[in-house]
Amino acid sequence: MMVILKPNTSEEDLNKLVAELKEVCVEVQINVGVERTLIGLVGDTSNIDKGIIELKECVDKVLKVQEPFKKANRKFHPQDTVIDVCGNLIGGKQIQIIAGPCSVESEDQIIEIAQRVKQSGANFLRGGAFKPRTSPYAFQGLGQDGLKLLKIAKEITGLPIVSEIMSARHLDMFYDSVDIIQVGARNMQNFDLLKELSKIKKPILLKRGLSSTIEDLLMSAEYILSGGNTDVILCERGIRTFENYTRNTLDLSAIPAIKKLSHLPIIVDPSHASGLSWMVESLSKAALAVGADGLIIEVHNDPKNAKCDGAQSIHPDMFDVVMKKLKKIAEIEDRFI
Amino acid sequence: MMVILKPNTSEEDLNKLVAELKEVCVEVQINVGVERTLIGLVGDTSNIDKGIIELKECVDKVLKVQEPFKKANRKFHPQDTVIDVCGNLIGGKQIQIIAGPCSVESEDQIIEIAQRVKQSGANFLRGGAFKPRTSPYAFQGLGQDGLKLLKIAKEITGLPIVSEIMSARHLDMFYDSVDIIQVGARNMQNFDLLKELSKIKKPILLKRGLSSTIEDLLMSAEYILSGGNTDVILCERGIRTFENYTRNTLDLSAIPAIKKLSHLPIIVDPSHASGLSWMVESLSKAALAVGADGLIIEVHNDPKNAKCDGAQSIHPDMFDVVMKKLKKIAEIEDRFI
Amino acid sequence: MMVILKPNTSEEDLNKLVAELKEVCVEVQINVGVERTLIGLVGDTSNIDKGIIELKECVDKVLKVQEPFKKANRKFHPQDTVIDVCGNLIGGKQIQIIAGPCSVESEDQIIEIAQRVKQSGANFLRGGAFKPRTSPYAFQGLGQDGLKLLKIAKEITGLPIVSEIMSARHLDMFYDSVDIIQVGARNMQNFDLLKELSKIKKPILLKRGLSSTIEDLLMSAEYILSGGNTDVILCERGIRTFENYTRNTLDLSAIPAIKKLSHLPIIVDPSHASGLSWMVESLSKAALAVGADGLIIEVHNDPKNAKCDGAQSIHPDMFDVVMKKLKKIAEIEDRFI
Amino acid sequence: MMVILKPNTSEEDLNKLVAELKEVCVEVQINVGVERTLIGLVGDTSNIDKGIIELKECVDKVLKVQEPFKKANRKFHPQDTVIDVCGNLIGGKQIQIIAGPCSVESEDQIIEIAQRVKQSGANFLRGGAFKPRTSPYAFQGLGQDGLKLLKIAKEITGLPIVSEIMSARHLDMFYDSVDIIQVGARNMQNFDLLKELSKIKKPILLKRGLSSTIEDLLMSAEYILSGGNTDVILCERGIRTFENYTRNTLDLSAIPAIKKLSHLPIIVDPSHASGLSWMVESLSKAALAVGADGLIIEVHNDPKNAKCDGAQSIHPDMFDVVMKKLKKIAEIEDRFI
Repeated sequence: MMVILKPNTSEEDLNKLVAELKEVCVEVQINVGVERTLIGLVGDTSNIDKGIIELKECVDKVLKVQEPFKKANRKFHPQDTVIDVCGNLIGGKQIQIIAGPCSVESEDQIIEIAQRVKQSGANFLRGGAFKPRTSPYAFQGLGQDGLKLLKIAKEITGLPIVSEIMSARHLDMFYDSVDIIQVGARNMQNFDLLKELSKIKKPILLKRGLSSTIEDLLMSAEYILSGGNTDVILCERGIRTFENYTRNTLDLSAIPAIKKLSHLPIIVDPSHASGLSWMVESLSKAALAVGADGLIIEVHNDPKNAKCDGAQSIHPDMFDVVMKKLKKIAEIEDRFI
Repeated sequence: MMVILKPNTSEEDLNKLVAELKEVCVEVQINVGVERTLIGLVGDTSNIDKGIIELKECVDKVLKVQEPFKKANRKFHPQDTVIDVCGNLIGGKQIQIIAGPCSVESEDQIIEIAQRVKQSGANFLRGGAFKPRTSPYAFQGLGQDGLKLLKIAKEITGLPIVSEIMSARHLDMFYDSVDIIQVGARNMQNFDLLKELSKIKKPILLKRGLSSTIEDLLMSAEYILSGGNTDVILCERGIRTFENYTRNTLDLSAIPAIKKLSHLPIIVDPSHASGLSWMVESLSKAALAVGADGLIIEVHNDPKNAKCDGAQSIHPDMFDVVMKKLKKIAEIEDRFI
Repeated sequence: MMVILKPNTSEEDLNKLVAELKEVCVEVQINVGVERTLIGLVGDTSNIDKGIIELKECVDKVLKVQEPFKKANRKFHPQDTVIDVCGNLIGGKQIQIIAGPCSVESEDQIIEIAQRVKQSGANFLRGGAFKPRTSPYAFQGLGQDGLKLLKIAKEITGLPIVSEIMSARHLDMFYDSVDIIQVGARNMQNFDLLKELSKIKKPILLKRGLSSTIEDLLMSAEYILSGGNTDVILCERGIRTFENYTRNTLDLSAIPAIKKLSHLPIIVDPSHASGLSWMVESLSKAALAVGADGLIIEVHNDPKNAKCDGAQSIHPDMFDVVMKKLKKIAEIEDRFI
Repeated sequence: MMVILKPNTSEEDLNKLVAELKEVCVEVQINVGVERTLIGLVGDTSNIDKGIIELKECVDKVLKVQEPFKKANRKFHPQDTVIDVCGNLIGGKQIQIIAGPCSVESEDQIIEIAQRVKQSGANFLRGGAFKPRTSPYAFQGLGQDGLKLLKIAKEITGLPIVSEIMSARHLDMFYDSVDIIQVGARNMQNFDLLKELSKIKKPILLKRGLSSTIEDLLMSAEYILSGGNTDVILCERGIRTFENYTRNTLDLSAIPAIKKLSHLPIIVDPSHASGLSWMVESLSKAALAVGADGLIIEVHNDPKNAKCDGAQSIHPDMFDVVMKKLKKIAEIEDRFI
């Protein structure tokens, strides 16, 4: 952290400030220049409130030098994190494809979709049991029954399960039923939930919030990592902007950015980002071309009658077509699906 | 809801579509025009997925006519909702001022601040016990001890208490300790929490999320109202935009908008919106001039050493100055503090 | 400007970098610390490209210390700029109200509106002659004829004229016809136009672009000031965000921010910000309460038949009501209209 | 356009409204329903102000049915527009790559870069002569001399020239010197300039504004098309959002969206979108995977000493590497470079 003093700060004020800063920092570097004096704060400054130092009379500005995330930071962990989920390695050479319906609706539905996406090459089955709906009057999911149906689908197909948790109260239920616990965009800063997830041994799929910066996302990952759970998979799913043609604006630049800043794997959700089934194919290809480690795609065997998000779900036939194209992109990137 | 068909849709396709729509709607109005056929869906369409109808081959576009919120809607509840909290009426002629520190830090601190803000005319004491911090390494609040200290401050000053809940697991604790339960911006779409709060008899202060539209905010209020809790106070606290001079962009237009759309009271948080203590005075005045029913202001007796948000907290002396000016604005608006 | 080196930079790399920096800077301060070396660049760094220095191998980050605007900067010009336009002082104790229709439509129309707004206390007449319309098929304004009608309205009422320029080619025409030349939001970064306006002696009303930061706005003002025209009036008129209930999101925090950063006067346009005539009153009051030096309000004698922006224009009767309320707010702020 | 009346509108009000609407529309369809009456406006409604109809007492809402752009609309022009520039077809099977420096700096510089990018397979040379810089103190380009140097580079390499115009006053100069005239993001709604460009026979590269929706961009294209110039190439170059890691947020979903809405070719500028040279490769690949018709990439032979935008420019060696990868992506998409 760098503290820049106002021009003409008196020596008395300088000394007073330095004394105060020394109480909170490991080391204070003073640099008296011709025009301005600069103070460098060295050591662990993650606990220091930049805004408060800026309140001091003689301070012009305070600038952050270091990223506030540590365990998620590639600087301190240069190798890619690779997470093994039932034998599927996420973050390695293989591109992982998670596919399935927005909501689990019935045993027949989830088994049929699971079998179809498996045939096309998907590695994981997704399906919502507890649904975060904007409206209290919309279908809220089958709840625990949904998780049971997912388990049945796993038994039949062998596909590991990804499903979204909406409350820390459901933790035991999820721990037993799913292989990756998803935290949705709307709960990315539900810190109470993140703390609970940090204490368990289960991979977490953490989706970026609609108004979250890349740094915010990595700070939420830091909550999970700092509690001891090292298996965090990040997910870009679109941010909220003024453009309304798509439901959200997919920020594909976030993929190389996160690859540079962090060692965690990152996947892309083209279905929620666009809200448009006909865009899923092209956005999926772009996501792999930009370097994503995987995709999470909504697939429904009857989109026109889906209980939620039908407009962004693709049919298994279409999913099969998409997978064939994705394999070619993966190859160019020297990866495979 | 209006369904607009593509030009030259065949009668067969039209009949098929109408048959499908009749299954989900109370009434279907068909209007065959020269260029285009329009279908109006009448009755309760809140459960119909606009996107799915748009998937049909012959459909060009589907337009929503009605707002999706009902209990929060002024159309069905023309009179202002006025909420009585320990004798203070929120949403009536009196402007309600909630003041206090970001975090409860000690008994001395919270009592001193409570006494000072009461002297200046505040009606409620705010104070955080559980803090939603972006960083896991930042001060997380005193927890249950913080709630106890707030209770002591209430006993001494008589000021009702406002504090933020972060988890449904703390519901009993909050029910017993506070007079208004605050839901923070980051939990505005924590639907599990909203559902729990809908079942209790305790006023809820619901803050707008950083990327939430006015409609999103009203839909989250609808979650609480639809469960049976009618006492919801809304709060505008800034949205996330590209402008970074202030922490967020205070959207004061939301106040008249919400007054038109809904009957619920709405207050403004100038401290979190700007993140800058020196802006609190002018934004507070603007908030009252635009029609807000109250303010929630961060006040700290020692901002430079505050454990959180010191940069946006004002000193009790400053609060006193601000209150005097606010009283004049309230008078012009034919209200009082 | 501060250059922060990567940990463990060799002395050779450091010396090489310092030599390069010395070529472009007045002074280079080196500060070798335990963990990191910092280099401060002192003097006029406005011409240095931060991004290029960051390309150097040994550089971790470059941080800007100084604002890039100079002539618009309050640091170098502490007193408020007050601009005299035909005897009306903009930026002083008096609040200036600019009122009139979106477009000049006819002699009768502009004269009637001018007389009405003058009666209610407006100090300036606005009226569009050249209109920046999103659609090429929409009414584009009366052009030079519109300017002539504005001149007639001025002769009759004595109100000075404000009108928007859309091209440097019209400069002579505007120089002769209007008292304040308006640069619209869409041309705020039409640098060719700004350069031409910097060379004349005529006050400029510079509107903030829809996606312009406060700093961008001040940099565009700097273009005009740096060429020798010192009479720049800034205007906040809403920025583009995800919220669509209003046409744009009025950023009232920008008023105190600009007052702190710059000495230039700043006014607010509540009509374009909201796009809703029924919001003009409350936003106008809020604008004065937050410290604006004036307002620009769309007034039309027949909004339902206006050739443009009827939905955001208020009737002269309504304008009269609004003005009475604004006078009270001005009084509280120790100003007058 | 659909007009939705309030419930219980009287027959008298309905008849009055219909009479008014008939004056401005080709046809008015009335549909009296159980709950609400709907009025459909058929014919050319592009000139009707939605907001003004919403001002009528009995009107609840007005909904637009048709896109406001016609000549740019794929509905009325189903085949892709393919533009022939010196034998290079833009919008066809071949992917067109435009490469070159931000600014023309010297004869040696522009010739060297032109030769290098040609060797690697670029089809066009870009180079700025007039530069839109945020700061008046930054390098403003070589002006007319820059255009002359571009002409020399074309003579030597045969590469057609793309350069940005900043003022209608330079139109003759550009008409003679360049093969594609670029309109920058900041001038996308400089309607005076667009009108001038609509009258000439020269392809226009129209960049999306930082806060422009896809519809805004197509409306600006409509300005050019409606004047008679049919050769418009669109360019996505990032929009302004809250995310600041990249200079702007590249909106790749805009590519399939525009392909669906319009017949015009669309290319992507990964350099300005990200502002980061190390991201150019991955974003370029993603742009082709998502369906772009070409790319415009900043290439500089000495990025660290470039007079502008060095941080986002790649070296010719790097450009060569990128081109090899892009060719593979093009192949998968059944196209070629």
